[in-house]
Amino acid sequence: MKSLASDNYAGVLPEIMEAILAANQQHAGSYGHDQITHRVFQSFRQAFGEIADVRFVFNGSGANVLSVSCAVDSFSSILCADISHMYVDESTSPETFTGCRLMPLKTNEDGKITVQSIKERIIRIGDEHHPQPKILSITQPTEYGTVYSLAEIREISGLLKANDMYLHIDGARIFNALVSLNATIKEMITDTGVDIISFGGTKLGMLFGEAVVVMHPDLSKNLKFRHKKSMQLSSKNRFIACQFEALLKNNLWQQYAQHANQMAAYLNEQIKEVSRITVTKPVQANAVFAIMPRDWTKALQEVMPFYVWDERTNEVRLMCSFDTTKDEIDEFVEVMKSLP
Amino acid sequence: MKSLASDNYAGVLPEIMEAILAANQQHAGSYGHDQITHRVFQSFRQAFGEIADVRFVFNGSGANVLSVSCAVDSFSSILCADISHMYVDESTSPETFTGCRLMPLKTNEDGKITVQSIKERIIRIGDEHHPQPKILSITQPTEYGTVYSLAEIREISGLLKANDMYLHIDGARIFNALVSLNATIKEMITDTGVDIISFGGTKLGMLFGEAVVVMHPDLSKNLKFRHKKSMQLSSKNRFIACQFEALLKNNLWQQYAQHANQMAAYLNEQIKEVSRITVTKPVQANAVFAIMPRDWTKALQEVMPFYVWDERTNEVRLMCSFDTTKDEIDEFVEVMKSLP
Amino acid sequence: MKSLASDNYAGVLPEIMEAILAANQQHAGSYGHDQITHRVFQSFRQAFGEIADVRFVFNGSGANVLSVSCAVDSFSSILCADISHMYVDESTSPETFTGCRLMPLKTNEDGKITVQSIKERIIRIGDEHHPQPKILSITQPTEYGTVYSLAEIREISGLLKANDMYLHIDGARIFNALVSLNATIKEMITDTGVDIISFGGTKLGMLFGEAVVVMHPDLSKNLKFRHKKSMQLSSKNRFIACQFEALLKNNLWQQYAQHANQMAAYLNEQIKEVSRITVTKPVQANAVFAIMPRDWTKALQEVMPFYVWDERTNEVRLMCSFDTTKDEIDEFVEVMKSLP
Amino acid sequence: MKSLASDNYAGVLPEIMEAILAANQQHAGSYGHDQITHRVFQSFRQAFGEIADVRFVFNGSGANVLSVSCAVDSFSSILCADISHMYVDESTSPETFTGCRLMPLKTNEDGKITVQSIKERIIRIGDEHHPQPKILSITQPTEYGTVYSLAEIREISGLLKANDMYLHIDGARIFNALVSLNATIKEMITDTGVDIISFGGTKLGMLFGEAVVVMHPDLSKNLKFRHKKSMQLSSKNRFIACQFEALLKNNLWQQYAQHANQMAAYLNEQIKEVSRITVTKPVQANAVFAIMPRDWTKALQEVMPFYVWDERTNEVRLMCSFDTTKDEIDEFVEVMKSLP
Repeated sequence: MKSLASDNYAGVLPEIMEAILAANQQHAGSYGHDQITHRVFQSFRQAFGEIADVRFVFNGSGANVLSVSCAVDSFSSILCADISHMYVDESTSPETFTGCRLMPLKTNEDGKITVQSIKERIIRIGDEHHPQPKILSITQPTEYGTVYSLAEIREISGLLKANDMYLHIDGARIFNALVSLNATIKEMITDTGVDIISFGGTKLGMLFGEAVVVMHPDLSKNLKFRHKKSMQLSSKNRFIACQFEALLKNNLWQQYAQHANQMAAYLNEQIKEVSRITVTKPVQANAVFAIMPRDWTKALQEVMPFYVWDERTNEVRLMCSFDTTKDEIDEFVEVMKSLP
Repeated sequence: MKSLASDNYAGVLPEIMEAILAANQQHAGSYGHDQITHRVFQSFRQAFGEIADVRFVFNGSGANVLSVSCAVDSFSSILCADISHMYVDESTSPETFTGCRLMPLKTNEDGKITVQSIKERIIRIGDEHHPQPKILSITQPTEYGTVYSLAEIREISGLLKANDMYLHIDGARIFNALVSLNATIKEMITDTGVDIISFGGTKLGMLFGEAVVVMHPDLSKNLKFRHKKSMQLSSKNRFIACQFEALLKNNLWQQYAQHANQMAAYLNEQIKEVSRITVTKPVQANAVFAIMPRDWTKALQEVMPFYVWDERTNEVRLMCSFDTTKDEIDEFVEVMKSLP
Repeated sequence: MKSLASDNYAGVLPEIMEAILAANQQHAGSYGHDQITHRVFQSFRQAFGEIADVRFVFNGSGANVLSVSCAVDSFSSILCADISHMYVDESTSPETFTGCRLMPLKTNEDGKITVQSIKERIIRIGDEHHPQPKILSITQPTEYGTVYSLAEIREISGLLKANDMYLHIDGARIFNALVSLNATIKEMITDTGVDIISFGGTKLGMLFGEAVVVMHPDLSKNLKFRHKKSMQLSSKNRFIACQFEALLKNNLWQQYAQHANQMAAYLNEQIKEVSRITVTKPVQANAVFAIMPRDWTKALQEVMPFYVWDERTNEVRLMCSFDTTKDEIDEFVEVMKSLP
Repeated sequence: MKSLASDNYAGVLPEIMEAILAANQQHAGSYGHDQITHRVFQSFRQAFGEIADVRFVFNGSGANVLSVSCAVDSFSSILCADISHMYVDESTSPETFTGCRLMPLKTNEDGKITVQSIKERIIRIGDEHHPQPKILSITQPTEYGTVYSLAEIREISGLLKANDMYLHIDGARIFNALVSLNATIKEMITDTGVDIISFGGTKLGMLFGEAVVVMHPDLSKNLKFRHKKSMQLSSKNRFIACQFEALLKNNLWQQYAQHANQMAAYLNEQIKEVSRITVTKPVQANAVFAIMPRDWTKALQEVMPFYVWDERTNEVRLMCSFDTTKDEIDEFVEVMKSLP
C-alpha cells in the first residue's frame, strides 16, 4: 500500500539502486578517501559554485546538527521555527551536541519565519547573561509545504549578515523547492547568501544519506573534525556519494521532484471539488494541508495512510512522493467523495 | 548611593558578617565535612522536614542548573517561564550542563505560569522524536514580583505528579514570598509538593551562597555527585553554611524580608499619588513595576538607579532591598513629583 | 586493487545487495515501524535470547556511543583499552554525547584488558570528587586480532557485576570472533554476561549499518530515546534491518567470517616461511600483525595496501576481508620473498 | 585542632576579613560592574602586565574548567598530569563543560610533566578521527609540592607554541611557588609564555574565590561569555575582588606563602632526624611527602590530621598552611619520635 504519510515511506529510485550496484565493484579507501567521493565532490562544486565544501552524512538530524555546530560557540543561540523538524522532531540532539539554546520563532500563516520575528530575537548582543544569536535555520520548503522565494531568502540572509549571523537551510525536501521556483541550486542556495545547508537525499528516493554543503569559509574551517565527531562519517562513504551522483547527473532530481509536486497540485485540484474539505495552505511543493471532517480520517487512512497534523482542527497533511500516481489520487478522492 | 536596580546591589547583613567571623576560629574539614555544615543541615531539616537533603552552592545559576540536572535524562525538556532568569539570564548553562531542551512557557499578566500553559506542553509523551517534559521550574516570587498562592503551587505540583514530572522553584527571593504569604518554609515548599528548590540567600544579604534543597528521594539519590560536578562545591563550605544558619536562626530572614516588602508596599502607596506613572503589577513582594514617562528615567536614575524592564513601554522595575529606607523612597518620589 | 588495509575497504556481499533490492518493493512505515524491522527484531531475539532489545544504527561510532550512553550517569567514567577504537578513533564523540570521562586501560601483550587492570580502576567508589566507573568496553576480537575466550569474558563480567558495573563489547568484527571460538551468538554474548554490544555488520560486507543489542533491562529502559537523540535512527530503517536478516539467515555470517579468518591463517602460514618478517600477535581472527623491514613497506603496499600500525617498530597490520583470495595472498607473499 | 591535611582546612586571613568588611559599606553594581572590581582589575594588570585579562570565580574547579574552555574546540584534547586535580578530583566537569577528551600524561618522579611526555601526545594532528591536542595544563607547585623552574616552564611553553597549543597553569597554590622561586608574578607567569592561569586565592587564606588570568588575546576574546556560562560569575563580585586586592597589596601574599613554605622546610628538617620515616619528594613549597610506618598513622592523625597519599606504600602528605606554627610541628615530631 502506498502512503501519503511521508515521502520517507517511499522506497529507493531505480537509478539510485543502479548507482549503488555500480559502486560495488571493488575495494576502495574508507571514510571518504575514495575516487567516487572525490568525483561527486566536484559535481557538488559544479552545482553550488567553487566555494562549496561538502560532507556526506547519514540522516537529516545528523545534517542539521552538524550544520549548526559549525556556526556556534557554546554560548550561542540557534534560531529556528517553533514548528521546525529540528525543534520538534530531533529530540535534544542539538542541545547535547552543541550546548546551545534553540530559540523558537513563531511563523506566519504560511509557516515562514519573517524578518520581523528574527529582529525580535536579535537582542542583548554582547550581554554575556543572554545566549547570543549566531545562526538561523529555515526549512525550505517549510513544514507547511510552502516555499520561500529567492527574494525572501535574500532578505533574511542580508539581515543575518548585517548582524554577524549565519543562515542555514534544512533542505530535507530541497529538490521540491527547487522545481517549485524553477531555480538552479546555485541560484537558490549559493547566490542568495545561504551559508550552510542540509541537502536532503533520502526523501527523494535515496536509500539513505544527506549532504552538508558549506558556502562560508568560517563554517568549513573545522568541518571535517565536526563531521567525524558528529558520528555521521560513513566508513563506506562512496555508497552515499554515488547516490548523490545519480541524483545530480543530468538533473535527475528535477524529474522526480517535479512529479511529486505535480501530484500534490493534482491532489489540490481534485480536493477543491469536494465539499467539507478545505485546503489550508498554498500548495507550492509536494504537500497538501487540508481540514476535513474528523470522521473521515479512519476510512481514508485505509486507502492511503496520512498524518493528522493538528488534532484540534483535524488538519491533515497529505504528502506526495516521487512514486505517487494519478490513479492513486483519483481513488483516494473517490473514496473521499463517497464519505457522508 | 543606594539603588532600586536589584537587591543584589545591596551588601551584607551585619548578622551575616558576624556569623562569618565566628566561623573563622579554627581549621575545619573541607568540602562540607565540617561541624558547621552538619549543624546547619539539621537546621534545614527542621525548617523543611525530615525528607530534606541540602547542598550549599555559590550562586543562583549554579543552584538552578544543579536543581534541574537532578531531575532529567539527557532527552528531557525543562519547562520554565519565557521570562524566567534561567531562560533569559543564565546564558546556555542549563543546556550545556544537562544536554536538555529549555521549553519556554508564556506567563499570564501577573507573570505566572498557568496550569493550562503547562498542559499544552505535556505532549508527545513516549515519542522518542520529541524532548520529554520532566521538570517545571517556577519562580517564587515571579519575575514581576507577584507571588503564587499555596493553592496555586499545590495545583501545579499535582498536575506534574500526575504526569511523572517534578516541580522546581527558583527561590532567589524566596524569603520575600514567605513573608508575603505569611507562610512557613514547610508550608510553602514541602507541604505543597515542591520537589527541589533553589533557596536563595544572596539577595537577602548574604555575602554569597544559595542552597539546593531536595524533597524527593529520586532527586537526592545522586545529589552529591551532581553537586560536585556542577563546580558548585565550596572547599570552605562552612562559610556558606554559617550564613544560612544566621538567616534561619530565630527566623531572622522574616525581619529583613518583611522590611523589603514593606518598602515596596510603601513605594507603591506613594506612587499612586503621582500622576503620569502607573503601577502595572500587583505589589506582593519587594518589587514595584510601573510605566512612567520616558524622559523621567535619566533624572530618577540619578537619585536611585533602576532597570528599564520593557523599553517599548518604558515599564521600569523598582526593587527594594533589606536596607532600603522610607526616607530614600520619599526623596525618590519627591523628585518624581517634581518632574514635568 | 584489493586491500589488506581494512575490511571496510571491501564492498557489499551479493546476498546483502539482494536483500536490499527485495526490501525495496513498496512503501513502509518509517523510523523502524515497518514489517521488516519487526521481523528482524525477532531474528535477533532468536539469536541472543528473549532478553534482547535491538536498535539499528548507521556506524560503529554511533553504536559505541549509544551503547555506553545507556549505562552512565553524567558523573561516570567509561573504562576502555587505550588502544580501543573508541579511545583513539572516534574523536571526542563519547565525551560530548555523555559528558563522561573515558578512562584508558593498558592492555597485555595480546591487546586484552586484564582483570587486574580493571581492578586498579575501580577506585574511590562513592567519592563525588572522582568520576565513578560504571561500564567497561572491550573489543572482540581485540585491536590486535586476538580473541577473548568465553571464560575470560565471564571472568570480566563477573568482576563488573560484583562492582555494579556493566560490560560492553565493541563487536565491529564480532562474527570473526564467533567463528574463531566456534561459539554461537548466545554462548559468546548473552551467556557470558555481556550487557550491551555494538554488533557490527559493515566490516563483514554490509552496505552500512550496525546493531546495538541490549541484554539488561536497566540499559534498555530508555533505549529508544537515546537511540533517537544519538542521531542514529534511520528513517528508512528497513534497509538496515534487511541486511542483518540476510547475514543471520542460515548463519550466512559464518561462511564469510570463516573465510576471512582462514585467509588470515593462510597468510600467517605463508609468512612464517619468509625470513626478515615476524608475526607479532597470535592470529585468532582475520588480522595478521607482523614486523618487517621498513624498506619493504612501499613495494608491498603497491601490491595490496595495508597500515603501518607502529611506526617505531614498523609493525604492520594485514587485515583479511570476506573477499580476500588465496591467489592474492600468494602473490603478496611472492613479492615479499623477492624483496632484498 | 590545626591540620596538615590541606591548606583549605585553614580559615581566613585577618587582612582578608578586614577587606571584606571594608567592601561592605554601600550598594554597588552587580556582576563585576563595581568600582572595587575595576580597581583590582588594574592591580592584576600591574602584576601580570598590560596583556592580562582577569575574571573572578568561586573555586578551583571553576577556574580550571573555565580556563581550558577558553582554548578548545569541542574536538580537542586537553593534556594534563594523570595525578592532577583536574584529572582525579574534579569529577567529569571538564568533559561535560567542554565536550573534550582529557589526556592523562605520566609524570616523572617529582610529579612534573616532561617535554618528552608531551611530545608523545602531540600526534595525529589534522586527523579528524583523533582528538586534537590544544592545551596543556600543568600544576604549579605540582601535586607533589615540587616547583617547575622558570626554564622548565619556558621550555614547555615553547614546545606548545611551536605546535599551536596553549599552556595553562593550575595555580591553586601559585603563591607558594612564587616565593619558592623568589620570582615575581610577571616573571613566572607572563614572561615564561603561560597563556592562562587558575590563580588561586582560597588556599592562601581567602574566604572563597580564585581568578582566571588570561595572557593571550585568542583566549580572552570570548572570556566574559564563557565566564558567565560556567556559572562562576558572582553577583556580588566585589567581595571576591576585594580579597585579591588585600593579597596583592604590598605583596601580602609573600609573607604568608613564605611562612607556609618555611614551615614545610622546618618540618622536613625535623623529620630527617627521625628514623623509620623518609621524605620522598624534594620539599620546594608547603608540602612534605614522606613514607612512614603504617601503624603510626592513627596516633599521629590525632595530633594533626593529614592524608595518606598512597595506601600501598603508606606515603603521606603533610601540608603546611599560612597559620601552621613551629610549636605545632615540634609537638607533631615529638609524638612521632615517641612512637615505637
